[in-house]
Amino acid sequence: MTVSPFDHPILTGLLGDAELAAFFSSEAELDAMLRFEAALAEAEGAEGVIPADAAKAIAAALPSVPLHHAALREATLRDGVIVPELVRQLRAAVGTPHDAYVHFGATSQDVIDTGLAIRLAGILPILDGRLASLAAALDALDARDGAIETMGHTRMQAAIPVPASRKILSWHDPLLRHRERLAAVRADVGILHFGGAAGTLEKLGGKGEAVGRRVAGSLGLAWVARPRHSERDGVAALASWLSLVTGSLGKMGEDIALMAQSEIAEVKLASGGGSSAMPHKVNPVGAEILVALARFNATLVGGMHQTLIHENERSGSAWTLEWLLLPQMTVATGAALRTAETLVGALSFVRKS
Amino acid sequence: MTVSPFDHPILTGLLGDAELAAFFSSEAELDAMLRFEAALAEAEGAEGVIPADAAKAIAAALPSVPLHHAALREATLRDGVIVPELVRQLRAAVGTPHDAYVHFGATSQDVIDTGLAIRLAGILPILDGRLASLAAALDALDARDGAIETMGHTRMQAAIPVPASRKILSWHDPLLRHRERLAAVRADVGILHFGGAAGTLEKLGGKGEAVGRRVAGSLGLAWVARPRHSERDGVAALASWLSLVTGSLGKMGEDIALMAQSEIAEVKLASGGGSSAMPHKVNPVGAEILVALARFNATLVGGMHQTLIHENERSGSAWTLEWLLLPQMTVATGAALRTAETLVGALSFVRKS
Amino acid sequence: MTVSPFDHPILTGLLGDAELAAFFSSEAELDAMLRFEAALAEAEGAEGVIPADAAKAIAAALPSVPLHHAALREATLRDGVIVPELVRQLRAAVGTPHDAYVHFGATSQDVIDTGLAIRLAGILPILDGRLASLAAALDALDARDGAIETMGHTRMQAAIPVPASRKILSWHDPLLRHRERLAAVRADVGILHFGGAAGTLEKLGGKGEAVGRRVAGSLGLAWVARPRHSERDGVAALASWLSLVTGSLGKMGEDIALMAQSEIAEVKLASGGGSSAMPHKVNPVGAEILVALARFNATLVGGMHQTLIHENERSGSAWTLEWLLLPQMTVATGAALRTAETLVGALSFVRKS
Amino acid sequence: MTVSPFDHPILTGLLGDAELAAFFSSEAELDAMLRFEAALAEAEGAEGVIPADAAKAIAAALPSVPLHHAALREATLRDGVIVPELVRQLRAAVGTPHDAYVHFGATSQDVIDTGLAIRLAGILPILDGRLASLAAALDALDARDGAIETMGHTRMQAAIPVPASRKILSWHDPLLRHRERLAAVRADVGILHFGGAAGTLEKLGGKGEAVGRRVAGSLGLAWVARPRHSERDGVAALASWLSLVTGSLGKMGEDIALMAQSEIAEVKLASGGGSSAMPHKVNPVGAEILVALARFNATLVGGMHQTLIHENERSGSAWTLEWLLLPQMTVATGAALRTAETLVGALSFVRKS
Repeated sequence: MTVSPFDHPILTGLLGDAELAAFFSSEAELDAMLRFEAALAEAEGAEGVIPADAAKAIAAALPSVPLHHAALREATLRDGVIVPELVRQLRAAVGTPHDAYVHFGATSQDVIDTGLAIRLAGILPILDGRLASLAAALDALDARDGAIETMGHTRMQAAIPVPASRKILSWHDPLLRHRERLAAVRADVGILHFGGAAGTLEKLGGKGEAVGRRVAGSLGLAWVARPRHSERDGVAALASWLSLVTGSLGKMGEDIALMAQSEIAEVKLASGGGSSAMPHKVNPVGAEILVALARFNATLVGGMHQTLIHENERSGSAWTLEWLLLPQMTVATGAALRTAETLVGALSFVRKS
Repeated sequence: MTVSPFDHPILTGLLGDAELAAFFSSEAELDAMLRFEAALAEAEGAEGVIPADAAKAIAAALPSVPLHHAALREATLRDGVIVPELVRQLRAAVGTPHDAYVHFGATSQDVIDTGLAIRLAGILPILDGRLASLAAALDALDARDGAIETMGHTRMQAAIPVPASRKILSWHDPLLRHRERLAAVRADVGILHFGGAAGTLEKLGGKGEAVGRRVAGSLGLAWVARPRHSERDGVAALASWLSLVTGSLGKMGEDIALMAQSEIAEVKLASGGGSSAMPHKVNPVGAEILVALARFNATLVGGMHQTLIHENERSGSAWTLEWLLLPQMTVATGAALRTAETLVGALSFVRKS
Repeated sequence: MTVSPFDHPILTGLLGDAELAAFFSSEAELDAMLRFEAALAEAEGAEGVIPADAAKAIAAALPSVPLHHAALREATLRDGVIVPELVRQLRAAVGTPHDAYVHFGATSQDVIDTGLAIRLAGILPILDGRLASLAAALDALDARDGAIETMGHTRMQAAIPVPASRKILSWHDPLLRHRERLAAVRADVGILHFGGAAGTLEKLGGKGEAVGRRVAGSLGLAWVARPRHSERDGVAALASWLSLVTGSLGKMGEDIALMAQSEIAEVKLASGGGSSAMPHKVNPVGAEILVALARFNATLVGGMHQTLIHENERSGSAWTLEWLLLPQMTVATGAALRTAETLVGALSFVRKS
Repeated sequence: MTVSPFDHPILTGLLGDAELAAFFSSEAELDAMLRFEAALAEAEGAEGVIPADAAKAIAAALPSVPLHHAALREATLRDGVIVPELVRQLRAAVGTPHDAYVHFGATSQDVIDTGLAIRLAGILPILDGRLASLAAALDALDARDGAIETMGHTRMQAAIPVPASRKILSWHDPLLRHRERLAAVRADVGILHFGGAAGTLEKLGGKGEAVGRRVAGSLGLAWVARPRHSERDGVAALASWLSLVTGSLGKMGEDIALMAQSEIAEVKLASGGGSSAMPHKVNPVGAEILVALARFNATLVGGMHQTLIHENERSGSAWTLEWLLLPQMTVATGAALRTAETLVGALSFVRKS
């Protein structure tokens, strides 16, 4: 059953992105959480925070723990977060005497936020690669069609002729800027979240930093001196970047839909959508989808900025709101990049003689 | 695989609503579309727009047509909408000589929008019933605890004592107003969408109204003189109403979370969420979820208002944006009502002696 | 100095609305507050809550109290609301022995919210009148141009011809529905807010209702049994309605801008905007402004829904957020209606032979 | 008359920022436009695009041109933008034979967007300075109160004690990150916009770059190879940054309001707001204002992302929408920083013995 088109068995063809959605499956989510717990046990074992044989036993057990999904679902309704029941199941699987050392010194938010960071580390290079690939496709389009004269339009009126190149570059250049901006975003979100109950790692004595550096290293994340449980500027900056990307693609989609209008016909699409009532039409579906996804992310980005008001050491409400928004924004961005590349591949400017 | 918590195998326990989500499954969606096509064929047969035996053949065939989901998915990527391929499959199933009379005179948006109206006709009474039930639960709470003195707080500071009743009624009264507002919303969205290619029913000659009235009657919807393909105030008004409801519940959630603070303890929750790091805590999870869902709908409602700018006779982009927002808002509202009723059931005011 | 185009000495010509903005001047705001305080004193005098001669003295003094704006400004920075200092100034002007009876039993929010209700009672009929007038202008356009054949466009492609009437009615009909919806909105916001410190009128003994009914009657507002200080569904419903109106006008603007494109030219505008670089152009400025104002209100409406989460008996933050959003949304709606009527007056459909 | 609190004679004390608002006065706006026109004439004179004596005459005349505001206001209603009438007035003032060389080769958007860039070049260092100053104030607070034990709260419940330092640093560290992010934003918006009618500088022959580099140099802006009239990622990135800043301050405000609750009293404010009904109260007005301004910017940022869908070479609607949002967001950010510094200065943590 599906409420979101991103999870819809039919509409995902149009609006979804299988490669990115895979990172937001519950399997991928749980897998990332287990990676954190295993890395934590190993680091705590190495630093002598927990017994070495406990660390070894935990690391050995975690990969094959059979998770009881129905219990996770039921407990999450009560706890607001998957982790307490997940840890309970992990401890049961590890068994005495090592069970108490599972998740030692950590808190739910460490697990969830690091689990997200692990997956974003896989996602962002994909988005970057698609930006590069789309920019290259636009370069190729420019090389082929850039010299064709088109009409420049300002305020919805014909202004003066401009070469197609001018339009193509106005779609292309923002992509390069988005790639440059991505470096800062990756640094923002590619971090270990590790703070314990209230962000002070109070159970680790003086070993907090040493353990944290080990965990971060083994997960490919940066260690930061203070956990950012309640400082959400990193994810809000990511959301802003996602919406900048889809917004730029939405501009391209709007331009293409306008130029493809029957009466203007400055571009044509090798393939477009059919109509149930008018078989003669070639609808610029991909272009419209870019606009829809841009307006979708522009809507949701405001909600991500609301989550910055994250009260106290951990906000159940603001944090949950992130879960409701960020995965969708990420997949929408992936879908827009996928759609844009197909659209550009099918696009040609029309030479008027 | 799931991008949205509303479709998530674990998080739906917390954030989803199985009863409402069922209306947004692809099965329910396709089923409602087939109901429209069947009602259309029957009405067109009765009015002599299509041959009576074609109508009979179509009505007989539709319920058992085996739909090819992979083809639907693939075609939707091309067409931007499920309907062209769906109609192709239906026509293939009906076979010659009647196939041409399937979907006669209708357009994709007739099918999709009426399919949504059919499902909303099932959904809105559920929401209304839950509002009534929640109001009754608050009446019961008032009857039991209303006389307990609590501290009134203005601008986050203790002001003067007020009876619990004052707080309970501030949660209760908006629910009654939302129920009153619902009548207008139901009239807004409980309508048949039937206009053909560009809203003029040009293929039905003078029979458009007669057919429309029959279709509307058999589907339990109101007939309107002019199709509202491009007039989206009805769905935007629905979205506004949904967000009013969740907003009022969010206010209740915020109040309860504030009163349940350890240092204030003016209410207690019979059950609350556990923590992975601090087993002693009782977290007001339900209250927080109400706030999160309220801010979620308050975010998405803006996007639904953006869709009012629905260009020309049909906007691919604005219409698609509705699909990305409205189902989620509806299920979020259901989830909030479900959560609120559980929360109120577990809530008691604390008598300070 | 002006931050908002609605207050800008040059841009208000384009984006503002002098008639509605007048209701949001600080003079109008203070005047409405004084009307509340005078009506309150008179009602409390009549009901014997305060001495009759105090009531008389207050009613006599208020209209000519010289307000010290600099002190109001400075104190508002400290208090977060104008009222404490305003009351202090009023009391000083009334002098002993009656000064203590100014604002008796009332609280800041009573004054501010009722002051808004008084002004909305003047504003909403203006908006309604403009809706009626615009609908009439569209009727006239339909009568003159409705039979002209235009091209229907779906998904940004020419579909089949439709009469201009079809388009005009798709702009017209939502206006009638907005007028119908307005009745409920007027009932929502046309109420007296009177609750005292924490909404219980604790200082009025058993006279709260009697006083309230008198105050409401003299101000032309409805009395409600329980003050709605913390129940903000009324103003959020108003905001939603405002954005529905601008959204429908934005759809009309978008259609006109599309039809007025040089290459399509299905409508022409008797006057349009000039360009600093291209004197030959006639830009559809009014149409674009309708789109801009629609997207503006669609943006702000989400913030108004966030204010529903109004914590406790009075939220300084959520309430202040209303002040930042609602006046602008109201004036934007007025500006859009004003712009739309001018635009429709200058619009004609082009007969293609 | 004032619609926005940012322009309100009384409320600006609470919600406005005089220093930043000055940049958005119509005087400052027109002054920046004239600076562009003067720099343009000088550069075009130096490059031989226009006669040297025309350049000299223009540069001499512009500073003292008496502008007719009523005519600007009236023409802007027609043209949608101030520039055509402004140029007309400038040309009239310069007189024959040089008048035709005023604004030569430029377009309205060059003037408006560069005028904004000039003012942002003054604004951003002010915001940066306030971030630095606020961070220093938090350092001082940490030095004085950081060792005081406070209760850590997660999910609105007491969790475990943490030093005040932990909370203070969670407010402090994001400020440093915002300062780091600002460098990229400054590069994004500190650019010359110069493209002529449709972004191709077609009237300047091969001299476009040379003129542009001169203009940029004299205005202290960066020259970019292609004008970004229709590429709005720079301003959307600025808007996102502004909302990140206010969001972080809103988190601090929310924390302070929660800690200042009467029943918790972990912090106290040297001064707070008074109440018209309850003189005993000390309301955390500044903290609430931070929350309100954060939610305000989080609302508006979504609209700025909608403007990314900027159709064709210049969009009247998307561009106008920027004017309705960006100045307010900027001043809201200034007001939040101003408020935050006052709040932190009045704040002390309470040592519980």
